Amino acid sequence: MNIDGKPYRSIWLADDGWSVEIIDQTQLPHTFAVRTLQTVQDAATAITDMQVRGAPLIGATAAYGMALAMREDATDANLDSAYDRLSGTRPTAVNLRCALDNMRDVLGGLSPATRADTAYHRAAAICDEDVGINRAIGEHGAEHIVRLWHEKKNGSSTQPVNILTHCNAGWLATVDWGTALSAIYVAHDEGVPVHVWVDETRPRNQGAALTAWELQKHGVPFTLIADNTGGHLMQAGLVDLCITGTDRTTRNGDVANKIGTYLKALAASDNGVPFYVALPSPTIDWELSAGGDIPIEQRGADEVTLMTGQAADGSIQTVRIGPEGAPAANYAFDVTPARLITGLITDRGTCGASEAGLLALYPERA
Amino acid sequence: MNIDGKPYRSIWLADDGWSVEIIDQTQLPHTFAVRTLQTVQDAATAITDMQVRGAPLIGATAAYGMALAMREDATDANLDSAYDRLSGTRPTAVNLRCALDNMRDVLGGLSPATRADTAYHRAAAICDEDVGINRAIGEHGAEHIVRLWHEKKNGSSTQPVNILTHCNAGWLATVDWGTALSAIYVAHDEGVPVHVWVDETRPRNQGAALTAWELQKHGVPFTLIADNTGGHLMQAGLVDLCITGTDRTTRNGDVANKIGTYLKALAASDNGVPFYVALPSPTIDWELSAGGDIPIEQRGADEVTLMTGQAADGSIQTVRIGPEGAPAANYAFDVTPARLITGLITDRGTCGASEAGLLALYPERA
Repeated sequence: MNIDGKPYRSIWLADDGWSVEIIDQTQLPHTFAVRTLQTVQDAATAITDMQVRGAPLIGATAAYGMALAMREDATDANLDSAYDRLSGTRPTAVNLRCALDNMRDVLGGLSPATRADTAYHRAAAICDEDVGINRAIGEHGAEHIVRLWHEKKNGSSTQPVNILTHCNAGWLATVDWGTALSAIYVAHDEGVPVHVWVDETRPRNQGAALTAWELQKHGVPFTLIADNTGGHLMQAGLVDLCITGTDRTTRNGDVANKIGTYLKALAASDNGVPFYVALPSPTIDWELSAGGDIPIEQRGADEVTLMTGQAADGSIQTVRIGPEGAPAANYAFDVTPARLITGLITDRGTCGASEAGLLALYPERA
Repeated sequence: MNIDGKPYRSIWLADDGWSVEIIDQTQLPHTFAVRTLQTVQDAATAITDMQVRGAPLIGATAAYGMALAMREDATDANLDSAYDRLSGTRPTAVNLRCALDNMRDVLGGLSPATRADTAYHRAAAICDEDVGINRAIGEHGAEHIVRLWHEKKNGSSTQPVNILTHCNAGWLATVDWGTALSAIYVAHDEGVPVHVWVDETRPRNQGAALTAWELQKHGVPFTLIADNTGGHLMQAGLVDLCITGTDRTTRNGDVANKIGTYLKALAASDNGVPFYVALPSPTIDWELSAGGDIPIEQRGADEVTLMTGQAADGSIQTVRIGPEGAPAANYAFDVTPARLITGLITDRGTCGASEAGLLALYPERA
């Protein structure tokens, strides 16, 4: 999508033809900084430090990480070592494993001399596939927004369609378009008046830092809210639908997504607000039967007790918000049960959040 | 309660016998600062700027604000003027109106010459009444914690009773003891092993800044969490009960409390976790039939977009967490419907969240 009128992806090959460039998302929304990855360790660090985040972008970065590794040392030993190093960076994202398995399968059968070139081509293809998937999700998701707009308009409302989203499932979380936000971008670009309630998304503030920044740069009207606010907005009739992304969907339609998603789904259910989850096919984990089997990543306490932002003088400062020495817990994801989800928006269309619904779209998995 | 071993209330008469002293809660948890109020405007500003907050403490501060006004000018005109000035500071807290009505009723019938002395005595009595009420709430609330502890212990659990709370309904929100936290303090002081999950409570962070500080100073084990976390903790069986305070309870048992309370009540209901609301009798608004009638205060966008804390060098810094110019909405409260509440813990005992339940404890309101 565009930044100040210039089209970007979230990961791309540098002009030198082999280095990989990413947007350092830890610096957003205050500074737009591009980082260059030249080693597999650079790629692993970019994932671990969340310079890149979002399941699809993590997968794409890991794929390019394998390419960087093969350029340096294309032996079987280094192929295994790169796989292990990259697969240990984030335990919950299934895309990471898919991308790495794909790269290892393709490269393992080749002679070392041809691995580097093939790895770069395969990583580029993984990126292009992601863009195609996300654009398709956007088109399917926009249908729901358009339908709600027609319902509002026929009821003579002059208000835009109000959409609540949690975390960042935008183009920054993917290679382009995003998942949940792709639906919003497509609807907006088609001229449907939309307004987005952006959950701040503590503790890492991906909503305030990334979703708000994306929407602002693209010109989509939005309002930032504390994560606590969505329930009241739904009670007050100020939300027409919710759309979030997901890191992993299990066979029964349960979804793991950023911590707090479950609470919004409960509020949507309690107030009759449609709750959609947008997901690329690769994030469906067909091997897990239900969300209770998903391991929930725990991260450092500092993400809860410290907050980083821009001071009035323009400097980036980190401040402690609780008393010194206060212990904190930091669960990164929660599981939203399928019963709370109105529909799963995939690149093949929208289906019910159930095994039957998913299998109707993916009969090859039956 | 104690701060570093020394007992405090949250508001008290200064040594000069007429000034009023408060803890500036906007400086917590980083700095313990006492502020002196000498005029009605000082009292109004302390409420508006949230140097004092929490429904009972707001009422007590307003009562002393009336006393300060009477000391300066005990005419009928100034009685009315002080009432109006103080009653406009916070629209949602019913205690504020109760305390002011009580002061005006008592003072209005007196000659101006005797109003100041009487006002100070009446304000002190309002404080003492609050302490008595809160201690009683704590004793009734602790019964639920003790019961759950016995259930856990008989199940051979060596884990403490895990209690989730939202915002600050501690002694800092009242004159002493608190409401929700009073139950926890009483149970803890009786030797029941408790552990408190403390919701950060965005956007003003009263959980991180005040509840965590209170519990730390009193020696109660706790863990700070992002507001998004409670749902997952309840799904995982890590919460035995929730207790929150409330700013206003309506006749049918609906409660208005800090924004986000409703989301936790939904999660508790969905997971079979008891959800209690602790409330002093004066916060029951018998004139409102249901929570939908409660006006919801909206506050400034800066509370959402800016975050204040302590930098590594010890200085207090305010940082912006979203992109420059991002619009934000800031609803201060939400309404939790009675159907989600296991029980209302009052100074007269625990009752069901319903008109029948409340009237059983308050038959004089039938």
